[in-house]
Amino acid sequence: MSLNISAPIGVLAPLLVRAKGIADPRAANPLLGCVLLNADHDGVLTVSATGGSLALTQRVALGTAGNGGGVSDTGSAAVDAARLALVVGGLSGDTVALRLTGKTGKGIVEVKAGGSRYSLSAAEADDYPPIGGEIPAVARAVADVSTTIRGGDLARMLRETLFSVCTDENRYGLNGLLIEAAPAGDDGMPRLRIVSTDGSRLSWSEGPASEAVTLDGRKSLISRAFAAKLESLISGPDQEWTLTIGQRWISARCGDVELGGVLVEGEFPDYRMIMPAAPKRIATVNGPVLAGALKRASLMASDRNSSVRIAFAEGGLTVSAQDVKAGSVVEELAGELQGSPLSTGFNASYLLNVLSSTRAESVRLELGEPLEPVIVRVDGRTDAVFVVMPMRLD
Amino acid sequence: MSLNISAPIGVLAPLLVRAKGIADPRAANPLLGCVLLNADHDGVLTVSATGGSLALTQRVALGTAGNGGGVSDTGSAAVDAARLALVVGGLSGDTVALRLTGKTGKGIVEVKAGGSRYSLSAAEADDYPPIGGEIPAVARAVADVSTTIRGGDLARMLRETLFSVCTDENRYGLNGLLIEAAPAGDDGMPRLRIVSTDGSRLSWSEGPASEAVTLDGRKSLISRAFAAKLESLISGPDQEWTLTIGQRWISARCGDVELGGVLVEGEFPDYRMIMPAAPKRIATVNGPVLAGALKRASLMASDRNSSVRIAFAEGGLTVSAQDVKAGSVVEELAGELQGSPLSTGFNASYLLNVLSSTRAESVRLELGEPLEPVIVRVDGRTDAVFVVMPMRLD
Repeated sequence: MSLNISAPIGVLAPLLVRAKGIADPRAANPLLGCVLLNADHDGVLTVSATGGSLALTQRVALGTAGNGGGVSDTGSAAVDAARLALVVGGLSGDTVALRLTGKTGKGIVEVKAGGSRYSLSAAEADDYPPIGGEIPAVARAVADVSTTIRGGDLARMLRETLFSVCTDENRYGLNGLLIEAAPAGDDGMPRLRIVSTDGSRLSWSEGPASEAVTLDGRKSLISRAFAAKLESLISGPDQEWTLTIGQRWISARCGDVELGGVLVEGEFPDYRMIMPAAPKRIATVNGPVLAGALKRASLMASDRNSSVRIAFAEGGLTVSAQDVKAGSVVEELAGELQGSPLSTGFNASYLLNVLSSTRAESVRLELGEPLEPVIVRVDGRTDAVFVVMPMRLD
Repeated sequence: MSLNISAPIGVLAPLLVRAKGIADPRAANPLLGCVLLNADHDGVLTVSATGGSLALTQRVALGTAGNGGGVSDTGSAAVDAARLALVVGGLSGDTVALRLTGKTGKGIVEVKAGGSRYSLSAAEADDYPPIGGEIPAVARAVADVSTTIRGGDLARMLRETLFSVCTDENRYGLNGLLIEAAPAGDDGMPRLRIVSTDGSRLSWSEGPASEAVTLDGRKSLISRAFAAKLESLISGPDQEWTLTIGQRWISARCGDVELGGVLVEGEFPDYRMIMPAAPKRIATVNGPVLAGALKRASLMASDRNSSVRIAFAEGGLTVSAQDVKAGSVVEELAGELQGSPLSTGFNASYLLNVLSSTRAESVRLELGEPLEPVIVRVDGRTDAVFVVMPMRLD
């Protein structure tokens, strides 16, 4: 048994690029920088990679050579993931042949296509760390829970929450995205919710789950890396993604692609506590117009936080910023205000993140007193809520 | 007199972006980080910038306010080039108004468009270093020489020589591109030649000059920065660019845009000495196929020089590379050889630079002995010659 396959370059190359994105060439264990190829008796090639806390498994049916397919000999090989992705991605022609020579599991992987013939050093495949093996085994000691969700909804929920995950690894409980069951919608459909916060802002986004959600009140924290990678793997709005959550592990599977990740430990804050009560003021403003004004005002903001002042009045909004040396800017824009005028400071990028991730045509800002949390909602949507803390400007 | 103009944003914004590319915000003199705006009585706005050794002057006719044009009041203002380019580039609407307030030449430049109102700190315009002023005055003490050349030819000649300019500022005479008159072509048309070398390779590219060249045997060295900026300013093959060369200064002018640059001092080597005599071997190979093989082989080259071995034989070429740890690659490709077989080392990127800058469909390599210079020509073209030194591979 020694891996010997041929595969369409157009099929194999994207699998290798994704595996390269998971492998960790800087890990202490050099095998984590490798992609693992395994061809089985059913003619299925499995392309896997793990970077420690993430694991990706991709399967593709090549068929057995006996039936005219691509798997001539079964076996495994581990090769530097980045190099193999570059090598296969750069080949010309339609088909690439890969063959392991030398003793089983180690030696040389020959890559041939057209006039190209590579000999790549292989690592000991038997030593390759288990892909979604060890940790899920522990996790599966307790009942897994799962749900299924459309690709379009899942991608939107991830996009609307990823930007506000805490990036400080030491902020216990904040450096993950909460994933939990939300109350069923008006249509009776089960719903899933993702929430993130970095202490200065919070994002909450929901979507319908297309099958019964059995999360049993479980609150799980997925890592930023898992969420970002999952978002990048979603390739169509109508894909069906199944999320299976164990005690320490989550897997997201769609067809022949499965991404696994270690759950983040810690207690997510009780985010409902943060949500302000009935607002004293409600401002409504066009999303792209506000985004344009915030971007232009940020050009004159003197600090890294893009501090701007927003004055809400009956006739509209005024966004302003100043830099002692460079000068100042005032942006006037239309808007509606219910309640008395208010002026407060904002980190412009916090609001811009909300506007760009939601692509909102119209947003509603629910305001309290100057330094109280502000709720941003997308007009016409009840499935996304954003909380932004104002800034004190001196 | 205090600058007061309005201009179409779509006209002004690209001029400011180009000026930003010339200004030097890190210069000791903070004015070199500014763009200079000047509106005159004829309704012409001049947008200038200088980074010390380069100077850009762009003119646009806005018309005088009395005749319905954009210049309401004449005057000058100097503003941070990067910031003004960002500010004007980010505005919405069609027209922007700029007005200098405060005392002449210094104060605040107000920028207004739609609901946006910026107040930008201005520098003392009177202190702005002369744009193409001082140095050309010296240069014009001797007779200037000039020539005119089509944009398409000039862009090609710059592209085919820029990559091999020496980047070591201490290599006296090599860190510039030689520009000189070439012998008239078979059609009797005067020609211009640009040559560059970094000691390991040499590029030589010619083009027809559309008017009489009066370079009088002058050999001038233009800086890499001037050549690169000039290439980026050329926006169409049929533009007419006039090059005027003084003793220490060169200017390239096309319509309302003029780029000036300080000439590089030093003696360019007698490059004809480097050119080998009649070749012992001539190999002909498809350009894109060779480029593909070199790129794929470079993936396994172990050093920063992308060292590859090329074996030339009657039946074709073999490109190979190896890395002690990663493995090896052999690329076989078709090609023709006149003369006996030869195998020698190359820096793959040197050959790739030639292939990509010439976009050659077919190239001819004129070979001597293994470590003798190799001449690369584009099949069917006599106006470009490239010399590449082979490498000793151990």
